[in-house]
Amino acid sequence: MNEAHHFRRFKSHLQIHTNLMFNELDTKIVNTIRILCVDMINKANSGHPGGAMGLSPTAHVLWSRFINFEDGWINRDHFILSCGHLSSLLYSLYHIHTQALTMDDLKSFRQFRAKTAGHPEVHALPIVDATTGPLGQGIANAVGQSIAFLHLAARFNKPDFPIFNNKIWCFTSDGDMMEGISHEAAALAGHLALNNLICFWDDNRITISGSTDLAFTEDVLMRYRAYGWHTISVENADVDLQAIHDAITEALKVEDKPVMIRLHTTIGYGSGLQNTSAVHGAPLPQNHFIDVKKHYGFDPEQSFVVSQDVCDFYAQVRAKTHEKVEAWNKLYADYQAKYPTEYAELQRIIKGDFKFEDFDKFLPKNDEKAAATRVFSGEVLNLIYPRYPGFIGSSADLTPSVNTTLKGSELFNAKCRTGRYFEFGIREHAMQAICNGIAFCRFSGLVPFSSTFFVFSNYMIPAIRIAAIESLRVLMVCTHDSIGVGEDGTTHQPVEGISQLRAMPNVAHYRPANRAETAAAYACALCGKARPSVFTFTRQGVPMCPEATYEGALKGGYIIKAPAEKPKLVLIGTGSELHLVIQAAEKLDFPVQVVSLPCFLLFDEQSLEYRRTVLPKGVATMSVEAGVSYGWHKYSQHHLGVDTYGFSAPGPVCFKEFGFTVENIVAEAKKFVAEFYE
Amino acid sequence: MNEAHHFRRFKSHLQIHTNLMFNELDTKIVNTIRILCVDMINKANSGHPGGAMGLSPTAHVLWSRFINFEDGWINRDHFILSCGHLSSLLYSLYHIHTQALTMDDLKSFRQFRAKTAGHPEVHALPIVDATTGPLGQGIANAVGQSIAFLHLAARFNKPDFPIFNNKIWCFTSDGDMMEGISHEAAALAGHLALNNLICFWDDNRITISGSTDLAFTEDVLMRYRAYGWHTISVENADVDLQAIHDAITEALKVEDKPVMIRLHTTIGYGSGLQNTSAVHGAPLPQNHFIDVKKHYGFDPEQSFVVSQDVCDFYAQVRAKTHEKVEAWNKLYADYQAKYPTEYAELQRIIKGDFKFEDFDKFLPKNDEKAAATRVFSGEVLNLIYPRYPGFIGSSADLTPSVNTTLKGSELFNAKCRTGRYFEFGIREHAMQAICNGIAFCRFSGLVPFSSTFFVFSNYMIPAIRIAAIESLRVLMVCTHDSIGVGEDGTTHQPVEGISQLRAMPNVAHYRPANRAETAAAYACALCGKARPSVFTFTRQGVPMCPEATYEGALKGGYIIKAPAEKPKLVLIGTGSELHLVIQAAEKLDFPVQVVSLPCFLLFDEQSLEYRRTVLPKGVATMSVEAGVSYGWHKYSQHHLGVDTYGFSAPGPVCFKEFGFTVENIVAEAKKFVAEFYE
Repeated sequence: MNEAHHFRRFKSHLQIHTNLMFNELDTKIVNTIRILCVDMINKANSGHPGGAMGLSPTAHVLWSRFINFEDGWINRDHFILSCGHLSSLLYSLYHIHTQALTMDDLKSFRQFRAKTAGHPEVHALPIVDATTGPLGQGIANAVGQSIAFLHLAARFNKPDFPIFNNKIWCFTSDGDMMEGISHEAAALAGHLALNNLICFWDDNRITISGSTDLAFTEDVLMRYRAYGWHTISVENADVDLQAIHDAITEALKVEDKPVMIRLHTTIGYGSGLQNTSAVHGAPLPQNHFIDVKKHYGFDPEQSFVVSQDVCDFYAQVRAKTHEKVEAWNKLYADYQAKYPTEYAELQRIIKGDFKFEDFDKFLPKNDEKAAATRVFSGEVLNLIYPRYPGFIGSSADLTPSVNTTLKGSELFNAKCRTGRYFEFGIREHAMQAICNGIAFCRFSGLVPFSSTFFVFSNYMIPAIRIAAIESLRVLMVCTHDSIGVGEDGTTHQPVEGISQLRAMPNVAHYRPANRAETAAAYACALCGKARPSVFTFTRQGVPMCPEATYEGALKGGYIIKAPAEKPKLVLIGTGSELHLVIQAAEKLDFPVQVVSLPCFLLFDEQSLEYRRTVLPKGVATMSVEAGVSYGWHKYSQHHLGVDTYGFSAPGPVCFKEFGFTVENIVAEAKKFVAEFYE
Repeated sequence: MNEAHHFRRFKSHLQIHTNLMFNELDTKIVNTIRILCVDMINKANSGHPGGAMGLSPTAHVLWSRFINFEDGWINRDHFILSCGHLSSLLYSLYHIHTQALTMDDLKSFRQFRAKTAGHPEVHALPIVDATTGPLGQGIANAVGQSIAFLHLAARFNKPDFPIFNNKIWCFTSDGDMMEGISHEAAALAGHLALNNLICFWDDNRITISGSTDLAFTEDVLMRYRAYGWHTISVENADVDLQAIHDAITEALKVEDKPVMIRLHTTIGYGSGLQNTSAVHGAPLPQNHFIDVKKHYGFDPEQSFVVSQDVCDFYAQVRAKTHEKVEAWNKLYADYQAKYPTEYAELQRIIKGDFKFEDFDKFLPKNDEKAAATRVFSGEVLNLIYPRYPGFIGSSADLTPSVNTTLKGSELFNAKCRTGRYFEFGIREHAMQAICNGIAFCRFSGLVPFSSTFFVFSNYMIPAIRIAAIESLRVLMVCTHDSIGVGEDGTTHQPVEGISQLRAMPNVAHYRPANRAETAAAYACALCGKARPSVFTFTRQGVPMCPEATYEGALKGGYIIKAPAEKPKLVLIGTGSELHLVIQAAEKLDFPVQVVSLPCFLLFDEQSLEYRRTVLPKGVATMSVEAGVSYGWHKYSQHHLGVDTYGFSAPGPVCFKEFGFTVENIVAEAKKFVAEFYE
């Protein structure tokens, strides 16, 4: 880069502020943020400076003039950085805006036990509104938060009492725009006319591989208009603070749609590597590090510098926000006085009050009929739904099949925000990330479930992972859980899905065998440790199985039948295979201990002593489950399962062909026991 | 439905054919297809009649007037039914068009061992061009086939020798349009200006949950125009065969873009349940079954009826196609004579000639340097690439990071179809399904690899599943394979990913420890059994590990070091942990057998005798891998792994904190051995 060009650029950069709204201090703040990001990344020797520098102007305009953000305020705006790799921008902002982070926090960016992780983490920093990084998901999280607050507003706002009127803001990058999950979420946001959602797209035309011309040349804004969004374009968001301001002002006037603001920026703006992929994901080389500081009028010898006027400016911003909070607090107190019932219900939602001892009173504890476990799920859902005002649900189009209709609930849509049921379309991945977004709302207390056919839950795995990392209490109702699906065939018969979930730390997977175990699974998911829970239910009817109990299932694994003498065989079953195992045990002429193991994770959390009672050491142990054997060796030496993909035929034929009959279990057990003890 | 309405509908249905192009026989054929679908589904008591009935007119127009389809012809058109649940339509067509299916095949729809599975399966019926069912993937498969043939055409066509000029046709449903993967694939198709791709969207406005108004109200065609597609709309595709014909004719004239044709249809058209979700996914109730047959002029007492004139009509269609094939065969023979070199290369691609004995000659067998295994991967890729003209590759934007640059290759794009490298954008799921589509081309012989960071391969799992079901030879290059990723933190550190892949039947996962094992992994993936292979490579450098060998890795697991006496401990390592295990073994004062286990699946395929040599029975066995312990119990009683999610810190810090040090392995091994034999 030659000197003349360098100077021109710098000059134009200074020229932008010749208007009334923005002055030299704003320029200084923008540049302070840019250089803070560079400092953090270069000290860590790791990070993504380019996009952070490009988005600094917009971040400053938004946070100084628009966003209503004070920690702990339940009506505060929410902000999601979908392009989580630009975490340095978020941390810099939080340092100067909310003071939630100290300078030492910034200096320990990306280091062990720092709050300032490589990508924003909810557990590491409680004012982060979503854990992001895997691209595209943040937009769906924002859609979830938008839904959550529109819903609460509709249920609890009263004339002259706008308890909830916050906005959801989301920064996105080219990568977010390319990921399919963002398309799903954006299409739904347009359909639902989410009018509290304002997103920004950092159109900097550079990704890791190089120019976006390599793979990304669509008309993004036209696409968003096709979804039903309002779109705005800012031509020079590197310098034109007024244009950014005007765009946000316009966005706030849109009353019936979500808004997408395109920001034409330059990646690494102001550095010698600007507009190249070299500045995307690596620290600036030393010469560029020095040059960019000089360029922005900073001393290259000093790092992590925030001058007092910058601090003072944002102190004023905070003070103004706090005035709004005070006013709102008064409003809320008046609301409590005038609408005590609504206030109490809202408190109940916010605090959450799922307790085992309450569930114990209304959940079914026994089998009354033979049915598919998905039927029991529907029954249990409809026992919980009317009792818990914060319990909401959704389906990816399959409501009648997955039995998730909530009786008496309306459907949430553009005209009805009070509905507690959501149709998310055939968009599984967005569905789960939207549910994650709802669960990420720290103050809403809403507990969402998603639902689909189990085999399609594999579209949701990246979102389940985020839920697991952050211990989000989200429930996934997955029906059609094995080869028992039958005629729909190979593509629709999960065989490996259960194992893939069990492999994920902090994901509780439940495969109940009957009505009582189904009730227990819901109880654990809602009243137990906060974490994602996946229920897998049968499509097909299963015989009554009165031996399986609610209390037993609460422990994840338990003895169904203990023999009088020391068992020669432990026979484990789950879900639709448990009744087969019970019958097989009766036909075996040696002592058999029958075990039900609906949840590995819960069982592993029991005491060693308890586990040894259920699964005694040194005893031949065989498990039966219509899924892969992978993972079962932890408990059993022999597994009757499905280690290939399935096939299209009536469910009973599939079961028979794969050996899930009482006769075959008996035969396999005899053979296994003989070999084990030989 | 009252009689008058019924009559009106029937009448309007008869009126459509008063033009020159289509006559009463066409009507009869359309209705024959509709009723065949109904018959198949009602006999099976399972299936999806509604969409099949709605798409019958378009299917007939396409297959009678446009599609060039003869089994075995390498330039034949390809057809993908992305809405695989409408398989009855495909089977009916194949029965009357290609005669690939007998009436008995239709009668055994969805039964055990039938070719006519619930969803179309490539392995069950070799003229099916893609296994579909999980929605959205079929469109991406079609994009892959489009790319494959444009690529072959560019490389092999010569003036006056259009060896490849076929079209890729794809039927899609509302569900396909909603799934994110279809958005990704469509955006890429527009970017790449795939001008041999023509898709149809069955806009019937009904899904399982009810009306598409519930969740799907975007302007789909506007969205496709935003992607760069040409769009066409057919207003009444239930009856207006001429309009369908005109639309396809227009589509074929578009030379620079893919085309999306919207078909406004009525689900279950002609049945009493038309335009309701009741006709989506269940057989017609008996009264409707009888009524619809009457409605279309069929005898309700008879089923599976195809009259002779229908057969004769399609015999003529076949004959016409065969004339084209004959002409093409002559062209191809002339091509062989005039361009023997090109012809030979094409044959080599089509036949595939990856052989272990050849790979043995050029692959590296030893360590020459310490480096990240992703570096070795790049090296091996560039040894294979120039030697195998059918080997092609792609990345989801991360080319410089995943080391998949193919030296000397151009980039495939709208202007350069000869490129053997593909930039698919930040669209992992579509990337893999597109690679699947390429591999589904039975005659192309192209073998594709995809690449991304390992943690994002979880976006690809649904597509990996289809590749596994169909034993597609597709390679996935996944780098940044553990907590060793370091600073990018929790969201970017795979801990469960390896286990989730191992849980999938027929997926070969490789985690090489050094250069030689990397070479062996590629050799097995390309020369071994046809199936999907996933390689996981380190981001971080690993020390030289000369003990790990090419020959050993070919067996999936092998002894690195056998002690002179009977081992007291078997110590297993994989990938970046193998060198730690080797060092730890040297510090233990009892006999230790060290084992490298880069591929579970390959190892499990070895003889029991061999496996018992590597992992002797009754010996304490401990495994070390920077991932979850889930699944390891099959081989080891104790695992040193990562059973939580990771954290943001430099890679070496992560390794140390999780106990992946020689000292800790030694300490754990001692403790474990003491407990095991006590």
